[in-house]
Amino acid sequence: ELFVLTYGALVAQLCKDYEKDEDVNTCLDRMGYGIGVRLIDDFLARSAVRKCRSYSETADTIAQVAFKMYLGVTPSVSCSSAAGNEFSLILDKNPLVDFVEELPAERASLCYCNLLCGVIRGALEMVHLAAEVTFLQDRLKGDAVTEIGITFLRKAED
Amino acid sequence: ELFVLTYGALVAQLCKDYEKDEDVNTCLDRMGYGIGVRLIDDFLARSAVRKCRSYSETADTIAQVAFKMYLGVTPSVSCSSAAGNEFSLILDKNPLVDFVEELPAERASLCYCNLLCGVIRGALEMVHLAAEVTFLQDRLKGDAVTEIGITFLRKAED
Repeated sequence: ELFVLTYGALVAQLCKDYEKDEDVNTCLDRMGYGIGVRLIDDFLARSAVRKCRSYSETADTIAQVAFKMYLGVTPSVSCSSAAGNEFSLILDKNPLVDFVEELPAERASLCYCNLLCGVIRGALEMVHLAAEVTFLQDRLKGDAVTEIGITFLRKAED
Repeated sequence: ELFVLTYGALVAQLCKDYEKDEDVNTCLDRMGYGIGVRLIDDFLARSAVRKCRSYSETADTIAQVAFKMYLGVTPSVSCSSAAGNEFSLILDKNPLVDFVEELPAERASLCYCNLLCGVIRGALEMVHLAAEVTFLQDRLKGDAVTEIGITFLRKAED
């Protein structure tokens, strides 16, 4: 609806501004970071979640509370490393692409929803968790599901 | 929340792209128009409103059903012309500016929420109503309320 279409307008504008997909992706990630840094307060206030005690709990909270609250969907979570610091959020349905049929051929490297990665990264940083967040699979690119990878980079500071 | 901050990122990007406030305003209106043209289907499907029989009923529907649905607020409506084709939507609270303190001095002519005007204009056009939609007052510019003016330009075609 309104949010989804407004997001589409933002991506379209960036595609006008930047010729290279990589630059659009970087810009979306950077914007998302700025949003996440501010959104975390709203999230903590509205969700009233308690402090997470593990990376696993953190990943579950992002999927089950944050995604539910802001996007209305709940990704499934899987841990993808023996070290226990890499997680995948798997989305069967991605509401942000509701009005997108497919990426145009000349935009094959676009991470359309890259803003989300930045939002997660920015929000995590505000609770003292450094993480890399990237799209690992994307239905817009023909993958079976959309998968966001979160790699926590170091222990949480208390 | 996420939508409000994403909208802020969009406006910030346009301010980077265009030096003149007027160009940003035009761009937001044009984007909004494209969104309204697509949003109307979602609105009609979800709201199940009946066909409006007068401009007055149309203005009320925009305020009480559409604003409520997409922005969570209900503007008050007043008719501002003897001819009965000019209406004002008056917002005491505008959720889109939740995170905006005030416009920077060098952006004094920016219609921050101009996207909304375009959305209304585009959506009305899809139900065969031509209208001009502009901000008449804006709390971001120091006015007491935010007021959106809608002027219907000709009779609805059946």
